[in-house]
Amino acid sequence: MPAVFAEDSVGLVTPQVAHFSEPLALACGRSLGDYQLVYETYGELNAARSNAVLICHALSGHHHAAGYHSADERKPGWWDSCIGPGKPIDTRKFFVVSLNNLGGCNGSTGPSSINPATGTPFGAEFPVMTVEDWVHSQARLADLLGIQQWAAVVGGSLGGMQALQWTITYPERVRHCLAIASAPKLSAQNIAFNEVARQAILTDPEFHGGHFQEQGVIPKRGLMLARMVGHITYLSDDAMGEKFGRGLKSEKLNYDFHSVEFQVESYLRYQGEEFSGRFDANTYLLMTKALDYFDPAAAHDGDLARTLSVAQADFCVMSFTTDWRFSPARSREIVDALLAARKNVSYLEIDAPQGHDAFLMPIPRYLQAFRGYMNRIEV
Amino acid sequence: MPAVFAEDSVGLVTPQVAHFSEPLALACGRSLGDYQLVYETYGELNAARSNAVLICHALSGHHHAAGYHSADERKPGWWDSCIGPGKPIDTRKFFVVSLNNLGGCNGSTGPSSINPATGTPFGAEFPVMTVEDWVHSQARLADLLGIQQWAAVVGGSLGGMQALQWTITYPERVRHCLAIASAPKLSAQNIAFNEVARQAILTDPEFHGGHFQEQGVIPKRGLMLARMVGHITYLSDDAMGEKFGRGLKSEKLNYDFHSVEFQVESYLRYQGEEFSGRFDANTYLLMTKALDYFDPAAAHDGDLARTLSVAQADFCVMSFTTDWRFSPARSREIVDALLAARKNVSYLEIDAPQGHDAFLMPIPRYLQAFRGYMNRIEV
Repeated sequence: MPAVFAEDSVGLVTPQVAHFSEPLALACGRSLGDYQLVYETYGELNAARSNAVLICHALSGHHHAAGYHSADERKPGWWDSCIGPGKPIDTRKFFVVSLNNLGGCNGSTGPSSINPATGTPFGAEFPVMTVEDWVHSQARLADLLGIQQWAAVVGGSLGGMQALQWTITYPERVRHCLAIASAPKLSAQNIAFNEVARQAILTDPEFHGGHFQEQGVIPKRGLMLARMVGHITYLSDDAMGEKFGRGLKSEKLNYDFHSVEFQVESYLRYQGEEFSGRFDANTYLLMTKALDYFDPAAAHDGDLARTLSVAQADFCVMSFTTDWRFSPARSREIVDALLAARKNVSYLEIDAPQGHDAFLMPIPRYLQAFRGYMNRIEV
Repeated sequence: MPAVFAEDSVGLVTPQVAHFSEPLALACGRSLGDYQLVYETYGELNAARSNAVLICHALSGHHHAAGYHSADERKPGWWDSCIGPGKPIDTRKFFVVSLNNLGGCNGSTGPSSINPATGTPFGAEFPVMTVEDWVHSQARLADLLGIQQWAAVVGGSLGGMQALQWTITYPERVRHCLAIASAPKLSAQNIAFNEVARQAILTDPEFHGGHFQEQGVIPKRGLMLARMVGHITYLSDDAMGEKFGRGLKSEKLNYDFHSVEFQVESYLRYQGEEFSGRFDANTYLLMTKALDYFDPAAAHDGDLARTLSVAQADFCVMSFTTDWRFSPARSREIVDALLAARKNVSYLEIDAPQGHDAFLMPIPRYLQAFRGYMNRIEV
């Protein structure tokens, strides 16, 4: 962290907590009574309350999207390259709201929270959430903050799915939708990778049916494997080749099974280890299920154009050439449906070697296009 | 199995066992004393001993490539579509040899064999094998069978790597090399997927450091996960979409973490379960290491053309459009190096939706090209 924050940083931010006591009905048929959402805001809500932007996070994301929680924080929020004074989501113009979704593990009510009915952590008893459930919970947060209509709802990957869902569920409450590196639904291959991750967690003996907290353990091995396989799908083959190639950790091969030989192995194990220490296994399961279930067109016999016909927003869709998790073709499905539904849509496919993770990176052409779209939004 | 074997089947086959007592020096620095290789043959060796074809298997393959072991066998050998009278590798013309590689778990000496030095299974003490080690062991089998020179060495995937290595290690002993759906070395992404599989096995509490046999258990969960992640890479996104799409097992979503909801989940779990019951975990580790280590050009500063310059064989390289494990681009690396080394090479990229597994499938254009090449071989 710099001693003095950069001019284009939102600087120090303090997470806030919103409490809700009216039960929230969920897609699974259950409802959630008391719950809380942790969120951050950047910039100022204008008098007309017309400049609010909602940030929706992806699988392992959270509310801390920009700035620093303390002068000691090593890294800023996860989308700091896109949010701040002069950045694509310019906090001199916009009032930005970023929350941790329900079911998360960063402060909002989720599986690791105490279930008031039992006095013990929810664990696996926490209801499975859907993208639509999240949108409803985000709408309540908007109500609380006095935001009747978002200038924009913005998200990458699973976050882009939430942005799309907003335009379907609350069409009158969204003026612009930005869906980046996203997809209208998962493919069989996408679901298959999620299933491997889930099985890694579910079959870890320390998962204890989702009640590992009471046992004082975490399913570390399962989470590690889940993150490793996920991570491979976030990077392009090229990016991995560029970054690690066939580089070795030491001078020569060890001819054993357990030592770390290739740099890419070392990187993946580190990513897995680090993740397993900070992320909740039940939340991981829940997030992958929300991804698998997302398929708004299913309600209209798979007709995405008809599904999106209710939207009142204008759309910006962006994808990255080497993203093979949600390839440009998946974004074009969204664009084609929007065009068929006669919506205003801008589409940009950005040439970037980083794969799916590109949406998190400060790629000049991406930031430029993102800024260009946001600048044209009237508030 | 048909009551009467089809005319183009090699029919009933009986595996044979070759014993070797001269120690085999291995790349890892260790050597293997007494060992055995299990193999099958199809067709007849001609008087000139000039019609022998060696089949090299891939990660989970074995010696049973064609025909049936009994009238009750449900399915024929794994490459039955390519080996038999009138098939691409025509057993009326060729004498075909197919073995289980050293380190395997189908009858050749491997981790589940008894270590004569200890009287207990080798387990994790079995030496890590390389593609070059296998080629040496296959050369000894050739010696035993009185085969001085192969008319062709043929393999898909990891098998193709062995075929390539033959032309480098024993250039005078190979007239034709067919490398199908293969690569000159693994990419970082390839290694990463192998590493996930290895970590799944190694971190399974029932792996017991590779000595699970003595404990009377198998690391079933680890093997299952390894196979699941492997299987995803064998199929194309399109093939998975075509086969399963987002189809559900039952009428509706269950909103839980553990039940099988999507058909692709059911398929993967079945594949994983079935595999974990028939494959040895140490062999799986060993096979992935052999894949990771394969990089013949490393001995020549990464110059594959120079590496292949010693070859005396003619080459046939084939790839499949939707194979993303070893994409056509990887085969073209081999072809480009062969052309630079002024070797005779035929290359065909086959339009096929099945992904990497296409090399095992009876795709008409593939079989036709394969047959065409084999028919032109003089014996």
